[in-house]
Amino acid sequence: MSVEDHELPVFTTAADMRAWVRKQKKSGRKVALVPTMGYLHEGHLSLVKAAKEKADVVVASIYVNPTQFAAHEDFDVYPRNPADDRAKLAAAGCHAVFEPESLYVAVPGGGGGESSNVVGRESNHPDSHETFVSVERLQRPLCGGSRPHFFRGVCTVVTKLFHICEPDVAVFGRKDYQQWRVICRMVRDLDFPIEVVGRPICREPDGLAMSSRNARLSAESRDRALSISRGLRWAEKAVAEAAVTRPDEVAAHVRGMIEEAGGKVDYVELLHAHNLGPVSDLTSQPVLLAVAAHFPARDRGTVRLIDNTVLNEIGDAQQGQGEQEEGQQQEQQQ
Amino acid sequence: MSVEDHELPVFTTAADMRAWVRKQKKSGRKVALVPTMGYLHEGHLSLVKAAKEKADVVVASIYVNPTQFAAHEDFDVYPRNPADDRAKLAAAGCHAVFEPESLYVAVPGGGGGESSNVVGRESNHPDSHETFVSVERLQRPLCGGSRPHFFRGVCTVVTKLFHICEPDVAVFGRKDYQQWRVICRMVRDLDFPIEVVGRPICREPDGLAMSSRNARLSAESRDRALSISRGLRWAEKAVAEAAVTRPDEVAAHVRGMIEEAGGKVDYVELLHAHNLGPVSDLTSQPVLLAVAAHFPARDRGTVRLIDNTVLNEIGDAQQGQGEQEEGQQQEQQQ
Repeated sequence: MSVEDHELPVFTTAADMRAWVRKQKKSGRKVALVPTMGYLHEGHLSLVKAAKEKADVVVASIYVNPTQFAAHEDFDVYPRNPADDRAKLAAAGCHAVFEPESLYVAVPGGGGGESSNVVGRESNHPDSHETFVSVERLQRPLCGGSRPHFFRGVCTVVTKLFHICEPDVAVFGRKDYQQWRVICRMVRDLDFPIEVVGRPICREPDGLAMSSRNARLSAESRDRALSISRGLRWAEKAVAEAAVTRPDEVAAHVRGMIEEAGGKVDYVELLHAHNLGPVSDLTSQPVLLAVAAHFPARDRGTVRLIDNTVLNEIGDAQQGQGEQEEGQQQEQQQ
Repeated sequence: MSVEDHELPVFTTAADMRAWVRKQKKSGRKVALVPTMGYLHEGHLSLVKAAKEKADVVVASIYVNPTQFAAHEDFDVYPRNPADDRAKLAAAGCHAVFEPESLYVAVPGGGGGESSNVVGRESNHPDSHETFVSVERLQRPLCGGSRPHFFRGVCTVVTKLFHICEPDVAVFGRKDYQQWRVICRMVRDLDFPIEVVGRPICREPDGLAMSSRNARLSAESRDRALSISRGLRWAEKAVAEAAVTRPDEVAAHVRGMIEEAGGKVDYVELLHAHNLGPVSDLTSQPVLLAVAAHFPARDRGTVRLIDNTVLNEIGDAQQGQGEQEEGQQQEQQQ
């Protein structure tokens, strides 16, 4: 453990992190975890704030998880700035940081260390990491289509973080809407004694959803990327006014807005907001409108941005299936 | 919770079980878990005894786990006798029993309750259980060949039991050698804060490895099934005396002994005792000799029996890679 100037303890090993959390719990304190991949923005800090309202002490983890990246994806160029992150977390009132160098067993001779756990790069050494957690249905649509190993990697690292940090509460952002639903399902199915909280998306003043990846957009790309949030706002208004009634009509219009702005659409989809199953209308259940699209990066390649909104949320409340439902079930289980 | 005559508390819900364990831990007691599928014999009770040496209180779970059975396997006829089990556990000095009716979310209209979680029978209802834990390499050989979903089911239910019972130590039998290795690997890879202990096989006086499934053998089948342990003893002697030097020679001879006695061999294999990889000789590493074979049942169908021994264990000790190694690593982590 090292203590920074601002007195925020930073733990780099599982044993040290767990010992600290157990000491907190022994003193009767409730512990919340905010898992992040670092390069923190206001969205992350809003999760820390929410965590502080749910628990006595807040641990944030900073770890760019190789198992949720494929070999062609941006693991190597994912933005990192741990010193800045720690300062922001200290200012936000976070109580400890878990910042492991590596979370996966890397066997000597088995390949390139931590990055050998990027999917498609891993070694087949019989003693290297080989255990994975999968949420088999919820992981398939949306981001699961173009990133088939993504949620398996997310669930695996979140399981590890849960076992190391032993939180009572874990806070996730709903920008990664499918991830939040997948984690809720995993927690329910595997009986984790953890309450999962999903927090609303934080946006820049112009509407762009906050993301660590925004830093990689050129100024022009950033302007063009506003087409995503403009599309979501259009859909919310059009559905509220019943100007459109069919999910495919909404999807086609939003896709058109993004493509017209020069975005390369990965998906624009409308799905059941709870189980991500297909929907045939916009009035009988809450409907997730989810978007993923690529825009040119300022360095090389493209930046993949995601965003979403839930349409027909009144229907959501009416059927008594609020967004926190699965987390609350967990809470009751304890 | 219900308290039996012999004062052994029996918990049937995850919440009650977890509350009891947390109370024990709050009092500073170390907790051990012995997961079982019931129909207990001396082998199971030896695990309880070992658990008592490792911890202050011992919880045994009794649960026939549907997700580790395939539709054509013996889930429905797996022997059950919970009242007898409880009496045996009380006599063995066990402190609590976890005996859930169901551990998987069963959605109304989604199929036949608990048995709908047998692989191949499950419903595809979008709200039913869908999260699984897999140890991708170690689960492939031996029992993974004929039972491809078996270890996925085992890892998933053990993860659930670990999250509900929150043990410091978990004790498994090495008759299920591959299962023990898979669980050790899962605990290492997912950072469970649990020490895994593997205990030696218990045998009947005539050498038959103890198993709940032995109850389903006819008297004649039981005699014939002794060919398995006779084969293992032959191999131990032949290898110790260097009368055979090649793994395939050992496998062929043991297979012959079992087939001659009327057994239908699923596998007779020699693998690296730690990582279950292939071996080309019997002297440079510890070698697992593992057997699975079917014998006629007294009711219907056949009974699948497994057994094993580790050859060249001196080599094992020499390279300082004892059987408890992974469990001990876990202990040090805490």
